[in-house]
Amino acid sequence: MINPYQQDLDKNPANYQPLTPITYLERAAKTFPDHVAIIHGSQRIPYRTFWQRSLKLGSALAKKGIGKGDTVTVMLSNTPPMLEAHFGVPMVKAVLHCLNTRLDAAVIAFQIDHAETKVLIVDREFSGVVKEALALANAKPLVIDYDDPDYAADAPYPKGERIGSLDYEAFVASGDEDFAWSMPDDEWDAISLNYTSGTTGNPKGVVYHHRGAALMAYTNTIHAGMGKHCVYLWTLPMFHCNGWCFPWTLAVQAGTHVCLRWVRAKPMYDAIADHGVTHLCGAPIVMSLLINAAEEDRRTFDQLVTFNTAAAPPPEAVLSGMADAGFAVTHLYGLTETYGPAVVNEWHTEWDGLDKGARTAKKARQGVRYAALEGLTVMDPETMTQTPADGETIGEVMARGNIIMKGYLKNRKASDEAFAGGWFHTGDLGVMHPDGYIQIKDRSKDIIISGGENISSIEVEDVLYKHPAVQACGVVARADEKWGEVPVAYVELKPGKTATEAEILDHCRSALARFKVPKAVIFAEIPKTSTGKIQKFRLREMARQG
Amino acid sequence: MINPYQQDLDKNPANYQPLTPITYLERAAKTFPDHVAIIHGSQRIPYRTFWQRSLKLGSALAKKGIGKGDTVTVMLSNTPPMLEAHFGVPMVKAVLHCLNTRLDAAVIAFQIDHAETKVLIVDREFSGVVKEALALANAKPLVIDYDDPDYAADAPYPKGERIGSLDYEAFVASGDEDFAWSMPDDEWDAISLNYTSGTTGNPKGVVYHHRGAALMAYTNTIHAGMGKHCVYLWTLPMFHCNGWCFPWTLAVQAGTHVCLRWVRAKPMYDAIADHGVTHLCGAPIVMSLLINAAEEDRRTFDQLVTFNTAAAPPPEAVLSGMADAGFAVTHLYGLTETYGPAVVNEWHTEWDGLDKGARTAKKARQGVRYAALEGLTVMDPETMTQTPADGETIGEVMARGNIIMKGYLKNRKASDEAFAGGWFHTGDLGVMHPDGYIQIKDRSKDIIISGGENISSIEVEDVLYKHPAVQACGVVARADEKWGEVPVAYVELKPGKTATEAEILDHCRSALARFKVPKAVIFAEIPKTSTGKIQKFRLREMARQG
Repeated sequence: MINPYQQDLDKNPANYQPLTPITYLERAAKTFPDHVAIIHGSQRIPYRTFWQRSLKLGSALAKKGIGKGDTVTVMLSNTPPMLEAHFGVPMVKAVLHCLNTRLDAAVIAFQIDHAETKVLIVDREFSGVVKEALALANAKPLVIDYDDPDYAADAPYPKGERIGSLDYEAFVASGDEDFAWSMPDDEWDAISLNYTSGTTGNPKGVVYHHRGAALMAYTNTIHAGMGKHCVYLWTLPMFHCNGWCFPWTLAVQAGTHVCLRWVRAKPMYDAIADHGVTHLCGAPIVMSLLINAAEEDRRTFDQLVTFNTAAAPPPEAVLSGMADAGFAVTHLYGLTETYGPAVVNEWHTEWDGLDKGARTAKKARQGVRYAALEGLTVMDPETMTQTPADGETIGEVMARGNIIMKGYLKNRKASDEAFAGGWFHTGDLGVMHPDGYIQIKDRSKDIIISGGENISSIEVEDVLYKHPAVQACGVVARADEKWGEVPVAYVELKPGKTATEAEILDHCRSALARFKVPKAVIFAEIPKTSTGKIQKFRLREMARQG
Repeated sequence: MINPYQQDLDKNPANYQPLTPITYLERAAKTFPDHVAIIHGSQRIPYRTFWQRSLKLGSALAKKGIGKGDTVTVMLSNTPPMLEAHFGVPMVKAVLHCLNTRLDAAVIAFQIDHAETKVLIVDREFSGVVKEALALANAKPLVIDYDDPDYAADAPYPKGERIGSLDYEAFVASGDEDFAWSMPDDEWDAISLNYTSGTTGNPKGVVYHHRGAALMAYTNTIHAGMGKHCVYLWTLPMFHCNGWCFPWTLAVQAGTHVCLRWVRAKPMYDAIADHGVTHLCGAPIVMSLLINAAEEDRRTFDQLVTFNTAAAPPPEAVLSGMADAGFAVTHLYGLTETYGPAVVNEWHTEWDGLDKGARTAKKARQGVRYAALEGLTVMDPETMTQTPADGETIGEVMARGNIIMKGYLKNRKASDEAFAGGWFHTGDLGVMHPDGYIQIKDRSKDIIISGGENISSIEVEDVLYKHPAVQACGVVARADEKWGEVPVAYVELKPGKTATEAEILDHCRSALARFKVPKAVIFAEIPKTSTGKIQKFRLREMARQG
């Protein structure tokens, strides 16, 4: 029998268009051309200009031959070019790759080679390390310098030299304002590339598609409670999962981006008070900065400000401090592979009536799936069966849906492992509570989250093992009031060899970005299983006991 | 050269799931099981129960053999079973067809035959007309009576007899609570069917898909400014474009549906005051009811209530009246083919400073595209080129995107015409203003909108022509304070024949639903072109001049 609903009701350009966040910006620019889209230092960039500059960036890239599947890499702070890149690059079907600005030259070189970078846009703050990286890399991209006219006078870091063959402003100026930009051929096409530190060896390139970015924009708007013309302060680095997709999200409500190069208390309070910031995101360390700010750096403000945090559950003292300071804290959870947050601690009004401890315990849970994530559960990864929702049985957190990455670039094996059994394996260990909320209990992949940055303990261990005196070692997280967690190294020396803590740390600094270097080296016998496998949980126990 | 972004990055169940609104309800029920989802009379239905009852409805349908591509038709008021049907029916991959409860037996019979209805759920308010329709129809669906336990004591219409072989409550009770519901095989699969009155002969069946319904839920939430746990009053019939997709939309924010069988001022004010309604939708006549309510029917309330209106631009007096009564009015525009509203009069804050007349003129414009509509423009339909954005040049309003229907059921010709040139032809004539906002100037398809209902002037003319004395006729809209527009008939009698207005109206009543019957019959010579074509615009002119 013929199903009449599958006859003569096909897709055509009138009823089917690929989902993409580009159309959100087009709509905002057409509808609210004079509304301020971006505030950066003395600059006030209206939506009309934001759109025109993105178009011109796209046009300039096209003139250089950049097109479908080409990678455009940027090493930028939270500044206007970073926002322009989020639209201008996909407008020519190219893929945006944002470098973590804290990376060292070797990792940068690896990434631009792996991504086959064709164009590299570099803020002068980072030209030193990028120059080093280019010397190491095989890729020979077109390098463009961004010379920020609003580089703060009290900059903690000076501008570096120009290393590019072009200047960003001149490059944008070379583009056409009436450029005929391209919709993606398919919403499944790649829009961006974000490397995750991973656990073994080289970073993995997480690929996002237009479909996921477009859906994240809706679901972020909804879960963050972002109303029309909301004002968003850029405390979260845009190189992290494309700033949790907020560069695209804000276009939906024609919100205002407030740029911020360095996360410091005074500029944050100034932005909140002067620009009417309604939303910001960040790791717990950003909350600490706000509540521990010096009296002279603080400002008062009338609006309720929503602070979305992830990476670690907000502790009780921080929650109280934030409430006192006028912030509402929402606890989110996600990974690079999930476009940033994909889980939200959906708050029940009646929980407001709980005592402080019980309230904090509720807030500490990661929560339930975003509307755009179709599945979230905790499973035994061996059997792929759901663990009991008893709040106790530990399993691996699994997710599925349209805000899960396409996969890892040029790494089929890792993609297949991540998607085994039709679910994305987060690598995080957790429980499901009887009410369906999940809570992370441990990370199976040995990731240390310090100041919101992921550090692979295995990467640090690999470096330690290269020291001639190291026999065995293990790197684990130690709780830290300021950074959330810091890496500490347990080291067992080879018989007859000696090394001091300072020597070991020097060795680490030579091979690792600063934030990955252990905060302490403890010489000890490393606990091992009978088969010689290092017992990480025992090291964590030792770290806990100090 | 191989594009690495198209290698080994394919869809799998972990990273691709069909979009469907069903998962929104599942999420709301899991996250907020005790939150009230539906208020109806004395009933308070929490999300847990809403989900369970929808599951049981789906299960009961499956037990009757209902599955992919089958049509489940309902003739229901804005009551809980209507909401359950919006989820329970698509859970078994079937298609929900909502009958306009004001239709006459002949049109109902046509629709259930055309839709090949397998199951028909009927509220006892409408059993009389449905019984007649079943006698006329070839389709022999399973008929299920819904006997509303909260049928108001002061009902303006009495309950009719039972006509089904099953009772709705018993039917739901026969389903399993742990029913394994189905995701759609493809997000392009049909979710619902809505007949539009069309202009020639039989109604056309507009088919919606899961993808569009899911996207409408996001974009409605965003444009209506619906926050978490918003409270929605059902003044808009759910049989209109699936209630503009709000049955699905509310699940995104775990909002509360407040049901309403008859749109009358007192129950509306009571609901707003007693249940904290934050949003409602309706044609201008609903606003008139609110602002012209008798003193004793009014209630005061503290919250700002958003009223979304469509069908006709809100007049100045209505806007002022609504503002005084505590409502914020948003002007929307759309058609059955666009899932309900797809265009929104996005308000600029600075327009608040305009004087009343200028403000009303801004508010009268239909506006700009919904975020989920990818294209909206005004074109010359012959050349398919855009008309100048001068606010004067009239063209046909055209739209494209993911909230445009799949097409017309079993009517390829009509679908092809509607989608000619890759744009959906709305049939409405309008202009584009220099700021990109569109404004409807006339309807090319001779539709009269009366009390929010579409009336095809051609359908009424067809009936008039069947009267033995009618030589020529034309039905056009006359402005009406209460209904927005009402149909009036211009009739030219055959030479030597006579007929009174009362006779003509009696003839119309015998063949048309009450709301389609002209409000007046004017005997006159019908203006025609040299080739004999009736000049509708001259009749409209005559109607305007009274």
